[in-house]
Amino acid sequence: MMKPLAVLSQTVNKNVIVELKGKREYRGVLDGYDPHMNVVLKNAEEFYDGDPVRKMGLVIVRGDNVIYISP
Amino acid sequence: MMKPLAVLSQTVNKNVIVELKGKREYRGVLDGYDPHMNVVLKNAEEFYDGDPVRKMGLVIVRGDNVIYISP
Amino acid sequence: MMKPLAVLSQTVNKNVIVELKGKREYRGVLDGYDPHMNVVLKNAEEFYDGDPVRKMGLVIVRGDNVIYISP
Amino acid sequence: MMKPLAVLSQTVNKNVIVELKGKREYRGVLDGYDPHMNVVLKNAEEFYDGDPVRKMGLVIVRGDNVIYISP
Amino acid sequence: MMKPLAVLSQTVNKNVIVELKGKREYRGVLDGYDPHMNVVLKNAEEFYDGDPVRKMGLVIVRGDNVIYISP
Amino acid sequence: MMKPLAVLSQTVNKNVIVELKGKREYRGVLDGYDPHMNVVLKNAEEFYDGDPVRKMGLVIVRGDNVIYISP
Amino acid sequence: MMKPLAVLSQTVNKNVIVELKGKREYRGVLDGYDPHMNVVLKNAEEFYDGDPVRKMGLVIVRGDNVIYISP
Repeated sequence: MMKPLAVLSQTVNKNVIVELKGKREYRGVLDGYDPHMNVVLKNAEEFYDGDPVRKMGLVIVRGDNVIYISP
Repeated sequence: MMKPLAVLSQTVNKNVIVELKGKREYRGVLDGYDPHMNVVLKNAEEFYDGDPVRKMGLVIVRGDNVIYISP
Repeated sequence: MMKPLAVLSQTVNKNVIVELKGKREYRGVLDGYDPHMNVVLKNAEEFYDGDPVRKMGLVIVRGDNVIYISP
Repeated sequence: MMKPLAVLSQTVNKNVIVELKGKREYRGVLDGYDPHMNVVLKNAEEFYDGDPVRKMGLVIVRGDNVIYISP
Repeated sequence: MMKPLAVLSQTVNKNVIVELKGKREYRGVLDGYDPHMNVVLKNAEEFYDGDPVRKMGLVIVRGDNVIYISP
Repeated sequence: MMKPLAVLSQTVNKNVIVELKGKREYRGVLDGYDPHMNVVLKNAEEFYDGDPVRKMGLVIVRGDNVIYISP
Repeated sequence: MMKPLAVLSQTVNKNVIVELKGKREYRGVLDGYDPHMNVVLKNAEEFYDGDPVRKMGLVIVRGDNVIYISP
């Protein structure tokens, strides 16, 4: 058994997909997180409805809008 | 009588259906959970409006959007 | 006078209707609950807009989306 | 001055109208409540957009969706 | 400087306008309130999109839906 | 560095713009606030989609719907 | 590893993009923040759907509506 935050802990410095409400998706290297599932991504790219939108060296994505996070 | 979290506890390592708002559904093996109903699924598959969308080896699904979880 | 959770306590092992936002309804035998109104139903059936959708031996319905629960 | 919960306390065993978001209304005898404004109604009737929908001997209406409660 | 709850405290027994989401407005005499901005109005009238809908001798309006309260 | 509430503290008795969800905007003199960003405005004017709607001598605007507050 | 608030701490006095729900974006110099991700921006500009809308010397943007913050 792995609790959700333990999975995030194991995923630091690895690639993740962060899917949000409203057809937004962020892909990048997980740099950090907190118990609200706010996450920090490095070398991130934003997608809207599957299409790339913007590249960001560093981004804090708010946990409130997260649908899922997949390592 | 079984409290909701006790049902989740019993379901670890078994197949579950996680139904979310917005016609999203996740099926996989329950690997973990927390009191917010955030869940970790292994060998998961995402469905949208009944159609398969994406396979994920591991995924954290946020509890906020859950409608129901069925073992 | 009966507090809401006391009504749930009395209803364990009896049939309930759980009405959710979004035209969803669950009927089954109440097996458990917690203070957030998350409920566990046995021998449950899901209805959408009045029509039967799916039968589930066991289901945890999240309290967040509940409109009402009727014994 | 009467605090909101004090008004509910005085209204136990009297008729109330519970108006919810989404054009839903419940009328019945107030049997109980809690600090979240979850209420228990006896001899209740549900209305949708002003039309009667369903009669229920006992119902717990979740406080989250309440717009107003009127004795 | 006047904190929001201090303004409510001063307004007890005076007329208030309570504007809610969804084009609803309540006017009446403020009879009570709590820290969640749940308010009790006496001799209240409900308006929808500016038109009068219903008169209520006493009503508890839930704070969750409040946009503003004006003495 | 200035924390958000420190900015509000400095702005008491000065003009502010309070932008809410749903195209609503309030302009007036900041008379008070609390940690939820509920604010009290004096000599306030409400705008909807940029057009003036209503003048209010005193108004409590609920923090929940605030998008931004600008001195 | 960098927690989300640690990233904000490092970004004080630097340019940030604050993306909100509803196609709103704020760009400016980060002047402060709190644990709710409420942020204070100096020399800020508001964009709606990519187009510039309004310049503000100082603005408190509420954390509730934040999708992401990028240094």
